[in-house]
Order: sequence, then C-alpha cells, then structure tokens
Amino acid sequence: MLDYAGLEALAAVLREGSFERAARRLHVTPSAVSQRIKQLEERVGQVLVLRGSPCTGTDAGRRLCLHLEQVQLLENELRRANPDLLAGSSGAPAPTLKLAVNADSLSTWFMDAMAAFTAGGNELLDLRIDDQEHTGERLREGEVIAAVTATGAAIAGCNTWPLGTMSYVAAASPAFIVRHFAHGVTPAALARAPMMIYDRKDRLQERWLQAHGLATRAQPPRHALPSNFGYVRACEVGMGWGMHPTALIANQLAEGTLVALLPNAPLDVPLYWAHPRSAQQSLTRLTQCVMAAARHCLEAPPGAT
Amino acid sequence: MLDYAGLEALAAVLREGSFERAARRLHVTPSAVSQRIKQLEERVGQVLVLRGSPCTGTDAGRRLCLHLEQVQLLENELRRANPDLLAGSSGAPAPTLKLAVNADSLSTWFMDAMAAFTAGGNELLDLRIDDQEHTGERLREGEVIAAVTATGAAIAGCNTWPLGTMSYVAAASPAFIVRHFAHGVTPAALARAPMMIYDRKDRLQERWLQAHGLATRAQPPRHALPSNFGYVRACEVGMGWGMHPTALIANQLAEGTLVALLPNAPLDVPLYWAHPRSAQQSLTRLTQCVMAAARHCLEAPPGAT
Repeated sequence: MLDYAGLEALAAVLREGSFERAARRLHVTPSAVSQRIKQLEERVGQVLVLRGSPCTGTDAGRRLCLHLEQVQLLENELRRANPDLLAGSSGAPAPTLKLAVNADSLSTWFMDAMAAFTAGGNELLDLRIDDQEHTGERLREGEVIAAVTATGAAIAGCNTWPLGTMSYVAAASPAFIVRHFAHGVTPAALARAPMMIYDRKDRLQERWLQAHGLATRAQPPRHALPSNFGYVRACEVGMGWGMHPTALIANQLAEGTLVALLPNAPLDVPLYWAHPRSAQQSLTRLTQCVMAAARHCLEAPPGAT
Repeated sequence: MLDYAGLEALAAVLREGSFERAARRLHVTPSAVSQRIKQLEERVGQVLVLRGSPCTGTDAGRRLCLHLEQVQLLENELRRANPDLLAGSSGAPAPTLKLAVNADSLSTWFMDAMAAFTAGGNELLDLRIDDQEHTGERLREGEVIAAVTATGAAIAGCNTWPLGTMSYVAAASPAFIVRHFAHGVTPAALARAPMMIYDRKDRLQERWLQAHGLATRAQPPRHALPSNFGYVRACEVGMGWGMHPTALIANQLAEGTLVALLPNAPLDVPLYWAHPRSAQQSLTRLTQCVMAAARHCLEAPPGAT
C-alpha cells in the first residue's frame, strides 16, 4: 500500500501552497509535514513538491494527489452507505473535487449540476475556470479530476462523453452597432471595431469571423476581460462586440440592450465531460448530476436520442 | 534611445506567447522577431524572454514592455491632440493598458470607469482579475501598469490614492440558513457549514469570522469558485455562505434570495488606485475615470471631504 499519511501531507501542501499552512490544517508541526513528504519522495523515488512561494506539485506529485482524492471519494461513499460500520471515523473531513469548467458553462447550465451534487452529499468543489479548449490540458496534467471541455478527441487514460452543444451569438449594444457598423457588418468595419475577448486563449470571435468570411489580415483591436459577468456588461456599455452564449443573454436580446451582429449566424460549440478512467467509479454521482443538467440546458449532441 | 522596433517585437511575443504569433501580428517573419529580440537582449545585456510554451517575460523584459506601453500611451495622446501634425502615422495601432482589478470591483463600480474611459478614446484594456490583496504584487512585478488594490502601504516606485471603502456582507440562502444555523450562527455551526471562497487567496471570510469572534480551530469546509457571477449564484442555490459586496447583492437581499448571517455586521475593505510614478502622465485620463466612478459608487475614504 501507498503511504496515505504522506499523501495527505502532500495534498495539504499543494492545496495550501506552503508547509506552514498545511501543518496548521493537519494540526501537526511544519517539520512533521516536511518529514512525511521527504519519506514519501524517497519511497516513490521522485521529487513530488517544487518548494517555492507557493509550493507546487511535480507531475508525479499531482498524480498522487488525484489518486488520494479518488480514494477519499470512495471512502466517503462507503461511509455514507454504511454509517454504522464506520461510525468511529465519521470525523473524517469531506473530500474536495477539483474540476475545470469553462466560464460560459458555469454561467449557464453547470450551476444546476453543482447545486444538485452538493445538495446530495458533503463533497466540496474546487473550481478552476479556463477556456473550453484548454480545460482538457488541466485534466491531462493531473491538476483536476474532471473537466468540461470542447475537445472530443481522446485524452490519454480518460473517458469522454458528449454533453451537447452550446450555441453562441455575436452581439453588441445598439449604440456600438450604430457607431461601428452603420455601413454594414463588413470585414473593413470589423477590422476597426473593438472586439471583446475573455482572455488570450479565447478564439471564439476569430472562429466566428472565419466561419462567415469576415476575417481580415488586420486583426481587430481587442479588449480582454476574463470575467463572465463583466464580459456581458462590457458589451452592454458599448466597449466592444463579443461572442455570448445565446441562453446567457436571452434577456438582453429580448430587451434590446444587446443586438446580434448578423441574423441567424450562431456558432455551435460541442461540449464534453471528461475524467480519468480510474476515477469513473468515484465520480458516478457527480457525472449523473452533470449529465442531467446538460441534458436539460444544452442542445442534444448529434446522434443522441 | 532604446531600440523601439526591438521593444515592439518583445511586447508582441509576451502578449501573444509565441514568436510565430508575434510575427503574424507584426507582419514579419518569425526569424525577424527572433533577431530583433536577440539584438535587444545583447544591447541591454540581459535575457528578456523565457522561451517556452507560452513564452514569458523576465523581470527586465516585463519592465521594458511597461515602458513601451507608457510611450505608446503618450504617443497616442499626442496624436489625438495634434491630428494634423502626425497625419502620416495615423495608422499606428491603439495602445493596450494592462490593469489588475479585483473581481468585486469589476462587478460593481469599475465597469463605469472602463465604459467612460473607452468611450473617450481608442485605448484598449487588458484586464487581470486577482484578489484585492494580490493585485499590488502584479504591479510590483511589472505585469500591469495600474491596479485596484487593498494595500494602502507604499509600493516601491508607485503612487497610491485612496478610492473609498467597499462594504461586504456575509450572506446565504434562506434554505441554507435553516439547514445549518437553526440553532444560531455559532462557532460550532460555522465550523461545519460549507463556506464559499473565491479562490485560495481569498481571506475575507476568515477576516469576518475573526472580526466577530466566530473563528474556530477547525477550519470550515470550503467550496472554491473563482467567478464573481458564479459565486453569488452558488450562494443563492445553497452551496454555501459567502462574503458579498453589499451593493452587488442589494436585489437579492431585498427579494430575500440571500439573507445576512448577522444583522449590522459588515466588513469594510478600503481600496486604492496604484500605478508607477513614471506612468502618472500617461494614465491621467484613466485615473480621472477611475476616481469619478469610485467617488460615485464607493463609500468615501476616511478624511475625504
């Protein structure tokens, strides 16, 4: 068996970022934490923690942490199903699941999944928000145990299920459209009108421009605003045009504070749920909650009945 | 004089993350970008770019970039004030200002500042969102040219102005309060009730617990959700209790979807606007917009008239 006291110390250091804070969490001294991690590193024959401010995990360290989280989830389920059997250990802390989700899912359908999941158990969630093209990397690197991703391609060691399609609309405020597109939504006008991007990884706007033959050699000026709420507001106040989940801005479109740049020109992004094959069992309940919320809010994946 | 063609290549590489994308932006070959940066590094006698995926800047590289941005801002103002004098160079791209702002400011008063600033000029904004205790570090490290911070303490080489106070309220959904605080908001109940944090850096909840004598040795279970919109929603759906800007959840408090844990127990966080002294002139218009929005939405700083 692995050294689980060592793994708990490792997980605490990576979560808290320092030996001191990890020690406080575990109610031991920092030198005890240091000792446990040193022993663990000797037994597995690899460096697991990159000492720094904050301390971070090596690939091997992160993989061991994810394994520990899976074991904790299974233990937690066992304890829930057998409250008498394990009454003595009921003081065990609730396990934490690290998930990577794209901001637009979080703003729309994923909240329902989290609400149902946390209402039905004591597990804690630690969310990382990233572009849907990049959440898969966080899974591959062992930083999270499951991810909502736009990559249907296989991720080594992972299972991937289609969740459905998120529909995006290019929209801006009426005043912005009058100011920049009085002579039509042309490539020349789009080359000068400020475009809102979420962050540097965000390529949705460029994909939409290309899909409609509107891309030019001159790239449009860009404001970057990595906040889902702020992104919509920034378009409403006229800072730029942007790609919005159609469901998220339904009110704004109905009230006319945001207007589609082109009629009937959505961009459809298929989404997937992915996690390591080894975590399938420990994530059963979460996967059910995620699937139910996606079925309710996203357009059905192609081929689904 | 510095080599400004080299500085432009450096800024493009750090902004785009790779030599290839920087070359596309500048309409030159990747080897031309590489050559310019090599020459610049030889002239300043330091490594400026850490080659990787993505490429990142050394301290010196970031500082040179910020200098370039300040020069571009000044050029931009000169061009606006003298359209005839510089007609030949009117094709210069709009300068981009990197700013660090805390999520709660972005959700409340900072949007007005950005709307006024972008409506009055062509400058582009590149926002970084971080905890108000940590935005100052991004300024110190030369990653941004200005920041909204909670640190009134002097930052080397920077000017700092008080903006006013943001008031926070600890709140949760009525169902959550019934479930966890039926016998009062006690230290024992708070040690078991899930707490929402924005991310690992977020200490507002702990500060509030300490301010009201409610902290315990056992730390509360925590969900982490680094999204301003998602954070409020997660509390509304009953995932946990959290610290919210009072102004942000005024509707929820009025409608009763969120309820204060304790009456009349706000946590006041003073905010500051900080930027390098050398950037004072180039940031004059932005600073005016920021001050005006803060004056309108935040509580006046102590001692202000």
